[in-house]
Amino acid sequence: MSFLDTCNGTHTKKALLSDSQLFEAQFQELVTELTERDLADPVLADALNRLREVLVYNAPGGKRNRGLSVIGSLRELLPPSQLTQDIVQRALLVGWCIELLQAFFLVADDIMDASVTRRGQPCWYKKDGIGLEAINDSFLLEASIYRLLRRHCRDQPYYVHLLELFTEVLYPPQDRLTSTEKNIANIVYPIVKYKTAFYSFYLPVAAAMYMAGINSEEEHNNAKHILLEMGEFFQIQDDYLDCYGDPAVTGKIGTDIQDNKCSWLVVTAMEIMTPEQRAELEACYGRHDEAKVEKVKALYNTLQMPTLYHKYEDESYQRLQKLIACHAQNLPHLVFLNFAKKIYKRNK
Amino acid sequence: MSFLDTCNGTHTKKALLSDSQLFEAQFQELVTELTERDLADPVLADALNRLREVLVYNAPGGKRNRGLSVIGSLRELLPPSQLTQDIVQRALLVGWCIELLQAFFLVADDIMDASVTRRGQPCWYKKDGIGLEAINDSFLLEASIYRLLRRHCRDQPYYVHLLELFTEVLYPPQDRLTSTEKNIANIVYPIVKYKTAFYSFYLPVAAAMYMAGINSEEEHNNAKHILLEMGEFFQIQDDYLDCYGDPAVTGKIGTDIQDNKCSWLVVTAMEIMTPEQRAELEACYGRHDEAKVEKVKALYNTLQMPTLYHKYEDESYQRLQKLIACHAQNLPHLVFLNFAKKIYKRNK
Repeated sequence: MSFLDTCNGTHTKKALLSDSQLFEAQFQELVTELTERDLADPVLADALNRLREVLVYNAPGGKRNRGLSVIGSLRELLPPSQLTQDIVQRALLVGWCIELLQAFFLVADDIMDASVTRRGQPCWYKKDGIGLEAINDSFLLEASIYRLLRRHCRDQPYYVHLLELFTEVLYPPQDRLTSTEKNIANIVYPIVKYKTAFYSFYLPVAAAMYMAGINSEEEHNNAKHILLEMGEFFQIQDDYLDCYGDPAVTGKIGTDIQDNKCSWLVVTAMEIMTPEQRAELEACYGRHDEAKVEKVKALYNTLQMPTLYHKYEDESYQRLQKLIACHAQNLPHLVFLNFAKKIYKRNK
Repeated sequence: MSFLDTCNGTHTKKALLSDSQLFEAQFQELVTELTERDLADPVLADALNRLREVLVYNAPGGKRNRGLSVIGSLRELLPPSQLTQDIVQRALLVGWCIELLQAFFLVADDIMDASVTRRGQPCWYKKDGIGLEAINDSFLLEASIYRLLRRHCRDQPYYVHLLELFTEVLYPPQDRLTSTEKNIANIVYPIVKYKTAFYSFYLPVAAAMYMAGINSEEEHNNAKHILLEMGEFFQIQDDYLDCYGDPAVTGKIGTDIQDNKCSWLVVTAMEIMTPEQRAELEACYGRHDEAKVEKVKALYNTLQMPTLYHKYEDESYQRLQKLIACHAQNLPHLVFLNFAKKIYKRNK
């Protein structure tokens, strides 16, 4: 896919911009649209100023893979001749709605996890004078999604499907697809990770499918199956890189061991360790003590976690290829392979 | 409206129950429906058990005026012959969705306000082992709304309108209707109170209107105008009763003065007080000190706040009658008058 795909002959200025640049440029428009009304009413003006601050601080700054996946997937699903400027703009907008959804979750999660920094800056609730009011700000981020969808997609046949997708992700105890051939020991993956897989992997592709007129429940279930497999792998990889990644490459120093996180590493290790090793793990995991952290890492090495991880990675990749072959049916395989390419064998 | 209205000849057992009893009875069904699936998966079972606890602790226990207003309004909008058992059940369910919406807001608000009790029991986040995880629980309450609407109303022509109504309330900086003839000094009412008026007064009636097939934007704007006026009055009355209500009647001891609340009393008093009185107010308001609270109350009495309030109440009531006469158009006036009857001149 090249930047020329965005060219429709009449918008030569925009035609030279990549999706990523178009996406970037749209943010300011969207903030203006959400916050510049009726500033004569002082109470409303205060509320809108607050909303602007919340949006500008929390919505940009991510990798934007999720947001860009909507237009990326749509380019695989529709021929270039059908991708009018309007459709591209709406796909970018729905992409921003996914970024807003993530911002909503991150603002709230950071409060619950007592996190300190996020994307290289203090967490929003940690800023002077914010505190627990950040809960309300997270609702503003969520509300902005529906405001934007209503404004831009209300007349589209897929409007109700988008509303359903965005509200469905709020309900984490969903019926999860269960794969019969699972990784090492059929680990039970926490609900919260299912939620992340849902909104990071399935949601952007599903939105693009609905925008392309693909509504069949069967095709959506198939896509969900494939994308949740990828989403689960992605997060297991994240857990692995937290401990084994090179901070010079990943840009962050992992703290899952100190933070007592339910990581793939600890869950998998617990399944194969001796009672003695288990006792040592329990004495050392979840402590902010460098020596104890090192002991956990030594234990992981003794248990050959890197080998197990690479075995899991290979198996997951094979499983994914099979899923795509069996389940993608009429969907262009590139929709899924583009995703897969970005995440397997990454080191950051 | 009598309980016989629910009778359709074939459900004699249910026919003898009032809306309020039917509403009550539906809660258990709804909890079961939301939480009893796939208990073989241990992670899912944990999540569903948590959801059940959250629902049972937080959703019942209110006055249920909001929830019952949906069926109440629908009975005014549709002739009894059209009110089949199915339609009644769905109206009760949408009513529960409004109760869930309120539970979602209350759980989150209590955290932000550092409240201690709610509806005669500890606030959810104050319970042992809950804490800030209550933020996530508030999302579960919100998610349950969309889960239920999808399950029960997906095939109805008004489904998308319900989704819009429930997501619209999340966005508090809405364009507010401004009345030209306002109370005492055109006080500017906080956004949060607009939100409460929206979901407590407009939302149940609007939902019933859509369920009755009334979709016109003009009719909805008219209803909104009338119902937001009532909602605003209701909250000003709440502010008044917090200070002047009889605890033996209201069942609670007001603490707005101690809690530094932006109450109608303090906002209105500030507009008419002398600089000396203002200095005294600032020294005493928002302090947990009995003597200072009494000074604020004495100041309110000096400024004749009860007289001003009753004047406001009368004016609001007159204004409301006029709004109903001018704006209700084709809508049965009883939809609005039933509400008005319940709130004007109440003392609890």
